[in-house]
Amino acid sequence: MLTQTASLIDPLALARALIQAPSVTPADAGALDTLESALSSLGFRCERHRFEDVDNLYARLGTEAPVFCFAGHTDVVPAGDDAAWQKPPFSGEVEDGVLWGRGAADMKGAIAAFVAAVARYREAHGEPAGSIAFLITGDEEGPAINGTKRLLEAVHEAGERFDHCLVGEPTNPERMGETIKIGRRGSLNGVVTVTGRQGHVAYPDKADNPIPPLLDLLGRLLARKLDDGAPHFQPSNLEVTSLDVGNHAHNVIPAKASAKFNIRFNISHKGEDLKRWIEREAKAAALGFEGRIDLDLKVTGDAFLTRTSAFTDLLKDAVAAETGQEPAMTTGGGTSDARFIKDYAPVAEFGLVGATMHQVDERVPAGDVEILTRIYTRILTRYFEVFNA
Amino acid sequence: MLTQTASLIDPLALARALIQAPSVTPADAGALDTLESALSSLGFRCERHRFEDVDNLYARLGTEAPVFCFAGHTDVVPAGDDAAWQKPPFSGEVEDGVLWGRGAADMKGAIAAFVAAVARYREAHGEPAGSIAFLITGDEEGPAINGTKRLLEAVHEAGERFDHCLVGEPTNPERMGETIKIGRRGSLNGVVTVTGRQGHVAYPDKADNPIPPLLDLLGRLLARKLDDGAPHFQPSNLEVTSLDVGNHAHNVIPAKASAKFNIRFNISHKGEDLKRWIEREAKAAALGFEGRIDLDLKVTGDAFLTRTSAFTDLLKDAVAAETGQEPAMTTGGGTSDARFIKDYAPVAEFGLVGATMHQVDERVPAGDVEILTRIYTRILTRYFEVFNA
Repeated sequence: MLTQTASLIDPLALARALIQAPSVTPADAGALDTLESALSSLGFRCERHRFEDVDNLYARLGTEAPVFCFAGHTDVVPAGDDAAWQKPPFSGEVEDGVLWGRGAADMKGAIAAFVAAVARYREAHGEPAGSIAFLITGDEEGPAINGTKRLLEAVHEAGERFDHCLVGEPTNPERMGETIKIGRRGSLNGVVTVTGRQGHVAYPDKADNPIPPLLDLLGRLLARKLDDGAPHFQPSNLEVTSLDVGNHAHNVIPAKASAKFNIRFNISHKGEDLKRWIEREAKAAALGFEGRIDLDLKVTGDAFLTRTSAFTDLLKDAVAAETGQEPAMTTGGGTSDARFIKDYAPVAEFGLVGATMHQVDERVPAGDVEILTRIYTRILTRYFEVFNA
Repeated sequence: MLTQTASLIDPLALARALIQAPSVTPADAGALDTLESALSSLGFRCERHRFEDVDNLYARLGTEAPVFCFAGHTDVVPAGDDAAWQKPPFSGEVEDGVLWGRGAADMKGAIAAFVAAVARYREAHGEPAGSIAFLITGDEEGPAINGTKRLLEAVHEAGERFDHCLVGEPTNPERMGETIKIGRRGSLNGVVTVTGRQGHVAYPDKADNPIPPLLDLLGRLLARKLDDGAPHFQPSNLEVTSLDVGNHAHNVIPAKASAKFNIRFNISHKGEDLKRWIEREAKAAALGFEGRIDLDLKVTGDAFLTRTSAFTDLLKDAVAAETGQEPAMTTGGGTSDARFIKDYAPVAEFGLVGATMHQVDERVPAGDVEILTRIYTRILTRYFEVFNA
């Protein structure tokens, strides 16, 4: 069934080519073309899905179940101050065993490793008894509106189904093999705006200071211990991130006061329940206040946990076999597109070391790209043994 | 002893001339020259005291005790949007019995009334058996640093003493005769700045959010009921007037948070005691916090009360005789330069109706200027009867 002799792909060379495309969200800068070209050479059927200013790529090799999906993004965060980098941020240089550049860790290195892993798998085993899919977006670091979410909707609408999904985010804090993510906390962003009546501090009865009800509400929110954690999860946590009045006059009671906060929550909570709780507390804080309290609450992702199973076991075994250490199965850190994928298939995440991601001098040991390629090859091999329909 | 025939002075004409000088702090724009010229014509010895960019006037008629001092200011607050005024703000127009213009109420009208009252007193009684002094500043509406405070220090240093002082601030809320002020609340301005450590909301253990200790401190300050009021005083009151973080990123824990507040306090408190209380609460709020809490606390005036006495009785009687109503003896409203004068002599305040002060269309009934001139004339007459050495 091989459409051509599967050329072995050098993961480091492909990673360099991807890094050299300055694909700062929503720019693609040729990154997806580079990837599509590599996948096509391996016999993948490729589709581009453009949503507004974002380009996305869906690719599939094979037509049968089970479908193993690799998900990721080619977009990167801005380089920041180019001059602060030791190497130009989009050079993709390899020097003294280090691969430099924006996206090296997050996550062009992992994409290259997975493409190379597919090539090695086919070299060793021929066509998989099932399918391998790539779900690659150009909008993970940006608003994430025209990326994975819409791409999943579009391919699902077209009949595509996934049995399991692996996201290539850089999950390891310091060294390869430390951490597989099998879930993520949920995130809720809140803005509370309290409107009162302006006046002079010497005549408080003629004004309605919006600050005390705001402080009351924030105090209520901070007073609640959300939980003590949950299996595989840290305790849920609320952080007030801004307070905004901007009144320069010491003798004036302001008309308006607002605050921003964020909750990272584990599976003890649903985002909708947290919203209702905040709404109740806002009502309580508004008692006796003649102004108004407005809430803008957005759940950007609910918490989820992928149950440990034969799938997560084979991931763990593959990581342990190549790195010599048993990875922790965790859910910490920020959000990722796994929050969208979880609604379609069991999803886990494993990639490179993220220590320098989003910073100047983003880089990974070149050897880690090879280790990751071996881990991914081992995962594919074991996957089609375990889930062979 | 009359050095010349005391010409009667028209209080309305003098008020108009003063208003026509656009003496927005610290500009004088000829206002003090106009006043000095009128006072000189009545035989006052006049001294100008310039401190940095502020001009001030001290004038005295007579050499003996008792010394009755009239205090006030020729500076005015800005007109704001000239186009929003029904009459040009510095026109000093009189139309349909209304005197228009910035400073009409606060407090050029009262200065004119007092000058006219001195002229009428002398016309009726000749030279006073004592002295009359004017203590007039050009920096009451501004920082009040180079005004009454330094002028008092300078003339006191030169040997000048006052037995009683009347400040011409617009003390009446709606109608002439409602209110004499016999004290003022103290005022304390506070700025609290909390410095923590910036970080990502998903990793709160790697950051140190300055907002919770700030909210804790403000909660402590707001939780204390300072008092239930004191004789002639409203309850003391604390208003938080600003909260400032200015963080636009929902996922970032900020490094710094600050708040502003003001306390208006009655004679149950000393400013220094309140400062120590706030410092103690800040220490308590900082417990367990690894960052720092910095306080900037300024007492801009301590509370004071002028004891009711023969002096305040004669003020009350004069107001009642001319207006037919017994004035309340209060301490409400903002601060005034009486806070500086109280350290030199018993001080009370009575002037025009302040309803439009600091607003567009500042104005007073022209008839009120005449009523105030009569009240001031009656006060001078009775003063030199009661306190005749």
